[in-house]
Amino acid sequence: MQETPYSKIFATARTQTPLIHHITNYVTVNDCANITLCAGGAPVMAHSTDEIEEMVQYAGALVLNIGTLDLAQIESMLLVGKAAGKRDIPIILDPVGAGATTLRTNAARRLMTELQISVLKGNAGEIGVLAGVDAKVRGVDSAGISGDPVSITTEYAGRSGMTIVMSGQTDIVSDGTRTLLVENGHPLMGAISGTGCMAASVTGVFAASGKDRVTSSTAALAAFGIAGERAATLAKGPGSFKVALFDSLAALTPDDLAEGARIRTA
Amino acid sequence: MQETPYSKIFATARTQTPLIHHITNYVTVNDCANITLCAGGAPVMAHSTDEIEEMVQYAGALVLNIGTLDLAQIESMLLVGKAAGKRDIPIILDPVGAGATTLRTNAARRLMTELQISVLKGNAGEIGVLAGVDAKVRGVDSAGISGDPVSITTEYAGRSGMTIVMSGQTDIVSDGTRTLLVENGHPLMGAISGTGCMAASVTGVFAASGKDRVTSSTAALAAFGIAGERAATLAKGPGSFKVALFDSLAALTPDDLAEGARIRTA
Amino acid sequence: MQETPYSKIFATARTQTPLIHHITNYVTVNDCANITLCAGGAPVMAHSTDEIEEMVQYAGALVLNIGTLDLAQIESMLLVGKAAGKRDIPIILDPVGAGATTLRTNAARRLMTELQISVLKGNAGEIGVLAGVDAKVRGVDSAGISGDPVSITTEYAGRSGMTIVMSGQTDIVSDGTRTLLVENGHPLMGAISGTGCMAASVTGVFAASGKDRVTSSTAALAAFGIAGERAATLAKGPGSFKVALFDSLAALTPDDLAEGARIRTA
Repeated sequence: MQETPYSKIFATARTQTPLIHHITNYVTVNDCANITLCAGGAPVMAHSTDEIEEMVQYAGALVLNIGTLDLAQIESMLLVGKAAGKRDIPIILDPVGAGATTLRTNAARRLMTELQISVLKGNAGEIGVLAGVDAKVRGVDSAGISGDPVSITTEYAGRSGMTIVMSGQTDIVSDGTRTLLVENGHPLMGAISGTGCMAASVTGVFAASGKDRVTSSTAALAAFGIAGERAATLAKGPGSFKVALFDSLAALTPDDLAEGARIRTA
Repeated sequence: MQETPYSKIFATARTQTPLIHHITNYVTVNDCANITLCAGGAPVMAHSTDEIEEMVQYAGALVLNIGTLDLAQIESMLLVGKAAGKRDIPIILDPVGAGATTLRTNAARRLMTELQISVLKGNAGEIGVLAGVDAKVRGVDSAGISGDPVSITTEYAGRSGMTIVMSGQTDIVSDGTRTLLVENGHPLMGAISGTGCMAASVTGVFAASGKDRVTSSTAALAAFGIAGERAATLAKGPGSFKVALFDSLAALTPDDLAEGARIRTA
Repeated sequence: MQETPYSKIFATARTQTPLIHHITNYVTVNDCANITLCAGGAPVMAHSTDEIEEMVQYAGALVLNIGTLDLAQIESMLLVGKAAGKRDIPIILDPVGAGATTLRTNAARRLMTELQISVLKGNAGEIGVLAGVDAKVRGVDSAGISGDPVSITTEYAGRSGMTIVMSGQTDIVSDGTRTLLVENGHPLMGAISGTGCMAASVTGVFAASGKDRVTSSTAALAAFGIAGERAATLAKGPGSFKVALFDSLAALTPDDLAEGARIRTA
């Protein structure tokens, strides 16, 4: 199989085992740790302001996820994010539930203002709310967005300087100039808790393994999506699907990614 | 299959996907999120006093579980519980470890005094201690109760105005007037951590889907128990049992519940 | 099969179901709870300084794991550790990430100074750093140690009065006088998050079930390693390996341990 820009990043991840520092929610943190390993990285979770600046120095990427946010966690995220910024460590922000509560919306905005976020990854509702369009979030789930998701993602990326990933049946990835669509994945990914969080972890592993954020994010989503497709063929329901998702991503090769990725220009 | 009051609530849950707000322990929180999805609901976990009053407005039920309690969490539970009360959102309380420490016993009592708890669900030791009879709790496990569990549950329900669920080999559900016994379930449910917590989540999903607390709680326990029975036929041990438990509940239909429920009047 | 000192401890665990009090990280806490059950114990997780002295009285062993440490957690660990010490409850310390940050290194040292740690269990980098030899830790993974691991472990055990477990492809267990090597285990154990933490939990179950720390720790590592070997024969990847690990340990008998243990004197 011919190497692609996507498979090349995956091969780099598998070779270099980048450390991915997470400050994330307590619901899916174990899934994030394990999917990081399956994607080729090594996870570390640390949140104490007494150690995170020191811990993040080892990291190839930093993943911030506000799924179970409180004020102390915001301070930790700001501190570790600034330390990461000084070392040019890419930061992935997953604004879980932004739009559902003022705390989450404002925290996401503050993190984007005070830190140099490389990749903002959320569902349509979350990205829509942060982009300032008419969108709704119910709990941590998207409850819809008005307007064309591709245009919204592209415009917001161009304006903000971040690479934006709007996850959904088709994932949209844009830096404002290039906009790619990823059509890998399976509906069972919505039947378990944590696939969104795991996608952010995989995006972190790939961001640590290739400089171009659109390419690395697209590759991450395609790899995770192919793993989901393969897992679905083995699953009897959401429980066995989750088990197979780990197995499938761990078994995925760069060649499999090159062959299975369904990526197109928007 | 003829619809029953139990299967009707389950069908409603599957159609409406109620949001279930949890403040729960950090040990089994991921299991609670996933079982909520399998039962037909959508989970959200949020604990910060800076957002929970806003977050709970979306909820069909609130589940409070004191399995890894501390003082800050009690404050969060009181705040979110009062907000839920104002909106008539049913509250399920799982008093994990009440009786094992003064903190837990007193916290459970305070939550019951200051909030309008709809359903109190615990093991024999926990319910017994809170009912004021001779009972013991060792860690988070029941270490026995003196007296007749059915009478104790019925009497305590009548006196407290709550629907009481005493879980065990036979689950007992009572509002003081009606007392039902659920005989579904499997011993392997005791071989993994978290089945008690998961039962509270499923009880939350069903409470959001039917007004009568005895009927909804009984339906929840029967559905979860049938899922356990089916999972046991597929399991090689506790690890594969847990996987199959999620698969089995997700695959369970209202008709399966109508057919498989082993419910009788006490 | 002939009973061995190792299988005897395992049989005791299965009969007595010791309660294992954990203060551990939020990443793998669910795995720790479930593996404790699979090993024959009963887990309890409690961290609040308002209850831990009362909760630990039920415990057969205390497991402290600093994988997601902060200052409040150190205080909890000191308080519960002192209460455990007064009751001669053995304490297992897993110094996750010691050497990676000053907070973790200093916390591990403080816990060892102020508490009576029975068993210190870490990877080569963590144990090396604490023993004061040239060693490195990257995130929570060992990045190498200078010198002979067996000599370092033996010398450190002799000097510190603790039983030291240095985990690795071959696990080393020493009290300074006796040094044993455990060769059970499988590379897939490194492909999932939490096997180190789970090994500490199993070590806790066995410490609660036999007085001799070298024997109980060796037995624990052998039992967990055999479960890993058996799980590997059933696994298609890290996801299914983890499921099979729980199944395999739960199914393991004292006779299986006597037969499958690969233990030799260093």
